[in-house]
Amino acid sequence: MTQQKKFAVVLSGCGVYDGAEIHEATLTMLAIAKAGASYTIFAPNINQHHVINHLTGEEMPETRNVLVESARIARGKIQDLKEYNPADFDAIVFPGGFGAAKNLSSLAFDGPNCSVNEDVVKAVKSTAEAGKPIGALCIAPAVIAKILGKVDVTIGNDPGTAGAIEAMGGKHVPATHGEIVIDRNYKVVTTPCYMLDATIDQIETGAKNVIKTILSMS
Amino acid sequence: MTQQKKFAVVLSGCGVYDGAEIHEATLTMLAIAKAGASYTIFAPNINQHHVINHLTGEEMPETRNVLVESARIARGKIQDLKEYNPADFDAIVFPGGFGAAKNLSSLAFDGPNCSVNEDVVKAVKSTAEAGKPIGALCIAPAVIAKILGKVDVTIGNDPGTAGAIEAMGGKHVPATHGEIVIDRNYKVVTTPCYMLDATIDQIETGAKNVIKTILSMS
Repeated sequence: MTQQKKFAVVLSGCGVYDGAEIHEATLTMLAIAKAGASYTIFAPNINQHHVINHLTGEEMPETRNVLVESARIARGKIQDLKEYNPADFDAIVFPGGFGAAKNLSSLAFDGPNCSVNEDVVKAVKSTAEAGKPIGALCIAPAVIAKILGKVDVTIGNDPGTAGAIEAMGGKHVPATHGEIVIDRNYKVVTTPCYMLDATIDQIETGAKNVIKTILSMS
Repeated sequence: MTQQKKFAVVLSGCGVYDGAEIHEATLTMLAIAKAGASYTIFAPNINQHHVINHLTGEEMPETRNVLVESARIARGKIQDLKEYNPADFDAIVFPGGFGAAKNLSSLAFDGPNCSVNEDVVKAVKSTAEAGKPIGALCIAPAVIAKILGKVDVTIGNDPGTAGAIEAMGGKHVPATHGEIVIDRNYKVVTTPCYMLDATIDQIETGAKNVIKTILSMS
């Protein structure tokens, strides 16, 4: 009997402009469940960089915690990313949203000179060292490139972000809706999602293709 | 050529314990897009009843606005429910979450004696009067029963909520995962979703069946 495959899913808040992109997160979880695998959700226990009013786009004078807000998407079933151990999982996946570039890293502010949250660095490096696949959607592939360096990823076709990936030592491969880019060395699987002007059904296709490809590798 | 069908989707915040259930909202939007229809998202411009820490379940000393937080799920593309006009749409759908019972109505606190937000009452009554279908997921069918009275709905099999629906003049019909209940008189289509102990792929099935049934009616 085949053992059920286990995914770790790492969130970065709850909402595209200051946290995890909600559709990408939800449809990653859906793709995992529909593939017959299971998921455990993680997020770092840190404050968000800031809080954005998603109606107006303006900053709000509030403080919110990434783990607490991510718990909204996880329906309360979530763990501190510090507790992540690659030995417990077959793969790890990072949905996108500005939270990847504002909370998991400082990419949105510092570009290729960004820093990355230490729990995220540890999770990605330890998974790669264990030879297990890493998935990333939307802007999250740029964070993976900052950590691993020489890796092939896609964020679609945005020249600024593609340039930052190359400046961090990675190789950017253009891709369109639902397409994935695979780095065979690090087993990194990426897709553009909302880094393109996408519809929600295109996000489902991208998430599904990432999960399907990871399962074929692991 | 068939005109593309237009749905209004009404949210009640962002997170199962104090707002719209995120998976139900996202998968309703996905089902609409995959059926070749379009959606416009609405929410009332009111403060949430309260803010719940989704990690601990405890109340937080904060104030959040239903329209502003719903905008997280809508990626900023959302309108005040006051602007809803049934003439512009083919159907209206209410995903669930405690927001339906705490923000759209006071059902969570007052049971069958609850009040319902006036914009929600107007949206449901005007849609019913226009002879157009109304969909509702999870706990939201109980709010529809409060407004319309004599209507067949399901919230799964929870005896307390089923009793409240009967006390408000409705008829509760038990249903399991993905099953729908149709009220032919009011064209109301309902499904239990997370009112049962469900998995995310079962939520997709429920949302899909509601949207498919509504499209077959309109």
